[in-house]
This record gives sequence, C-alpha cells and structure tokens, in this order.
Amino acid sequence: MGAHKTGGYLVTGAWAKKAAKEASFMGSSITIASSEDKNFNYIPKNYSLENNIDYFHVTSNNTIFGTQIKNFYNGEIPLACDMSSDIFSRKINIEDFDLIYAGAQKNMGPAGTTLYICKKEILGKSSVPIPTMLDLKTHSDKDSMFNTPPVFPIYASMLNLRWLKRIGGLSYIEEQNEKKSELIYNQIDNSSLFLGTANKEDRSSMNVTFTLTNEALNETFNKMLVEANINGLKGHRSVGGFRASMYNAMPFESVSILVDIMKELENKKG
Amino acid sequence: MGAHKTGGYLVTGAWAKKAAKEASFMGSSITIASSEDKNFNYIPKNYSLENNIDYFHVTSNNTIFGTQIKNFYNGEIPLACDMSSDIFSRKINIEDFDLIYAGAQKNMGPAGTTLYICKKEILGKSSVPIPTMLDLKTHSDKDSMFNTPPVFPIYASMLNLRWLKRIGGLSYIEEQNEKKSELIYNQIDNSSLFLGTANKEDRSSMNVTFTLTNEALNETFNKMLVEANINGLKGHRSVGGFRASMYNAMPFESVSILVDIMKELENKKG
Repeated sequence: MGAHKTGGYLVTGAWAKKAAKEASFMGSSITIASSEDKNFNYIPKNYSLENNIDYFHVTSNNTIFGTQIKNFYNGEIPLACDMSSDIFSRKINIEDFDLIYAGAQKNMGPAGTTLYICKKEILGKSSVPIPTMLDLKTHSDKDSMFNTPPVFPIYASMLNLRWLKRIGGLSYIEEQNEKKSELIYNQIDNSSLFLGTANKEDRSSMNVTFTLTNEALNETFNKMLVEANINGLKGHRSVGGFRASMYNAMPFESVSILVDIMKELENKKG
Repeated sequence: MGAHKTGGYLVTGAWAKKAAKEASFMGSSITIASSEDKNFNYIPKNYSLENNIDYFHVTSNNTIFGTQIKNFYNGEIPLACDMSSDIFSRKINIEDFDLIYAGAQKNMGPAGTTLYICKKEILGKSSVPIPTMLDLKTHSDKDSMFNTPPVFPIYASMLNLRWLKRIGGLSYIEEQNEKKSELIYNQIDNSSLFLGTANKEDRSSMNVTFTLTNEALNETFNKMLVEANINGLKGHRSVGGFRASMYNAMPFESVSILVDIMKELENKKG
C-alpha cells in the first residue's frame, strides 16, 4: 500500500468493509464488487479486476452473513485474504495467495495473536510511513520477536495445531466441517419452518445463518434450545434470526443435537 | 498528536528513543533532553519545557540502563508516560499523568495485552487519520472490546492484581522493591569489585545494572551464578556487564542469594 497505490476490495460483509476503510488511511481503496445490495447474502462473482489496482483483497468467510468464498481469484494481481474465520478449516492452495492474515480465535488458538503468511517479495513496499509495529517487514526481520510476543496464545495455538495434525489434518477436518454444516443445511432445505439466509452456492461451512419463516415460533424454538443447553445461537443483529457457528472445535454430536431440535419443532409445528 | 502538533520527548533510553521515532510518523517529535551522551546512565533534569509542545513524553523506567524517574513533571503541559517496566511497582500520583501506557509483561500479567490509563479529554484529538485500532478513542468507546480481546492475558492480569492487593498493595510492594534493590546497591557500593552503571540518584528499583571492575573475574562470577541456579543476569549488549531484574514477582530471598554470591566473590578476590 502507499500514497499512490490502490487496493481493490471485494466487499462481502462487515469485516471486508472495515478492511477497505482502514486501507483508505494509507492510500486509495476501491470497491471491486459488493453484495451489500442484498445484505451481503452472496459472494459477488461477475466482476472484472482493473489492471490499475496494486492488490486484490478478499475475506474468505463472513461470520455474520454465513457466506464463504469457494473459489479464490487466481491471476496476476497480488491476492490478500483475511482468513480469520475459516483458516485451518479446509484445504486451500497456498500458492494462490500473496498475503493471508488471520486472528487466532476461531480455529487456531485463544484470542491474542494474529497469523500472517506472505510472500517475501511483498514486504517493505509500503510507500507511506507506517508505525513500525504495523509493518510486516518488521516482524519478518525480527523472527516475530520485535515486541515481546503473546506467549500463551502462541503456545496454545501450537498445541491446537498439533492436535489438528494428529486427528488427520486439513483433509479430515474439512470433511468433518462439511458433514456438520450439511447436516443443518439439509434440515433447513427440507423444512417448511426454517429459511437459510445465505445464497446456496455461497454457504459457509463455519457459520450457518437461518431464520424462522414464522417469527411467532421464535420463543418456542429458543425455549427448546435452552432446554437442550444450546447457547450462542442468536444471529447477529444485522441479519437477525439464528447463527450456528461450527468451528473446528465443535463436535458433530453437538450439531446433531441442534438438528434434532429443529426436527422436533418441524414435527410439532411444520 | 497530529500534522501540526509536536510531542516533546525525554530521551532516557532505547524505548524512549523508539517512542520519539514512532511519534514522528504522525506529526513532529522533538527531543527535550537526552542522556545519550553518557550512554543513558542518568535521567536529565535541567531542561525547560517549551510552551510550543502539545505533550511531554517520558519513560518511567529504563530496563536496559537501570535508571528510573523518581519525580515526574507536574505542570501545565499534558504528560504521557510509558510505564511498561515499573507500573504497579510503586505508588505514583495518578493525577500527574494525562496518559499512561504499559505492556503487561513486567508487573501486571503475561505478555499479550497493554494497559492504557488516560484522561478522557485527550481522546479523539488526533488531527491525522490513524488506523482505527491505534486510536485510543476506539477502545474507550467500545469498552475495550472493539476487537476480540486477548482474554487469557487479561484474566491472568486480574488474578495477579488481586494477589497484589491481597499482599498489601502498592505501599507494600514498593517497600519490598526498595528493600530488594537496596540490598544489591549496598553491596555494589561497599565493594571493590562491582560498579553500578547508573547515576546513583537515578537508580532503578526494578533493574540493577552493574559491571565487574576487573573483567577477568567475569568467568568466575558467571560460574558461581550457574552453580546457584541464577540465570538471566547477563546485561544488555549496549551496556554489558550484569543486570538483575527484580519485578514484583521476584522474592527477596532470591535477591539475597545473589548478594551472598557477590559477597563470596568479594571475600575471595576483593
């Protein structure tokens, strides 16, 4: 980034929008395509990348709106990706990306550290003075020890990634995540009561967002959830309804209990 | 800070110098006084604060050089202080400061979180666009939950601060820290072998820096330290010699063992 540089942003949700805004402090940021017209319920696909952008920035998964990029851009323009909410949840072609960044707190470890993966040639190219701490080159040059690192979140991330490797790595966890999310999506699609809010082909395997077609049933459903010890299912206020987040740590059995309750409501009221 | 604003810096060590450098990215930063002429072995005192600075920035304790500010500036100009290495080690007059910031990892808790204490009127006054995450107003407005907070370091800090309160608070710990550091300083001053590197009146109660007058004894002294299971006493490369850091968690007994070894060397070789 820099004074005469332009970042192109795929605006697919709240985090993508914030990223574009922050970039504008350091240079120009333009919106390549946005799905805000439909409350971010889809991933824009028919856009053309102008050659005058210096990089293309995407957000791989949108926690609030329950959408996820399935096929990443693969071209000449450097690709930057905020992968905070689905890194280590599925296989990706690492070569497609020039920069990946991700907060730890979804699939990596406890909140408090951030992972960067980047091609060395992108480092040190900022043409505006930026705080030393925000310059990735600083951290690369100092082996991630420019500052005193947050040792506990890093240590716990290591243990968690070892666990992931031991249970079968990304191939295994991707399969599990597909199984978990498909269980709910199938229930939604075979139901007269539930409605998925995200465009089918863009559905996230991490966050399933849905509403009840009949809002009068919200109270009943919420009561059933409480009785089954399910919590945290309230959707973000900008979408409403419900959101089932199923990061790597969520077992299939827990998702299965939720789906049983959805079925029970269907049998009673569907 | 801002495009037409100037911060005045008291340059008393490596961290103070870095702070002045970072500030220059956002506006002007000028050096009010510096002790670099004597390798930062003292705290400058005879300086006058120009009225054209917008704030005055000091570093309360200098870990590398073993100096500490005993009396803080108390005047009209807003005072900012990096208190990373001695916060919660002694009583301060909190009213003297407009902004205090401190990394957790010395006396507060595990690395990974930073404490800010500031007067509300200083917030939101930056006249240059800064990243949202670096704007204190952001964190104040969002009750420190703009981002997902580093929960473990914050939780452990809470437990540690409760412990501090329980054992007697700042009055008690200040007394302990004085006792610990004076034990070593007395040994240094009554020794023909050891030399304190910091100006006496500016000596830190957190980090005691000293050298051996006869470098040939370094090997013997290091061997004695290893035998007593004392480690981490090597001085920073820019000062050389030795550094005994005695943050709140260091018990008097451990310091006492070090001083016994210093005495032993004195008896043998002094």
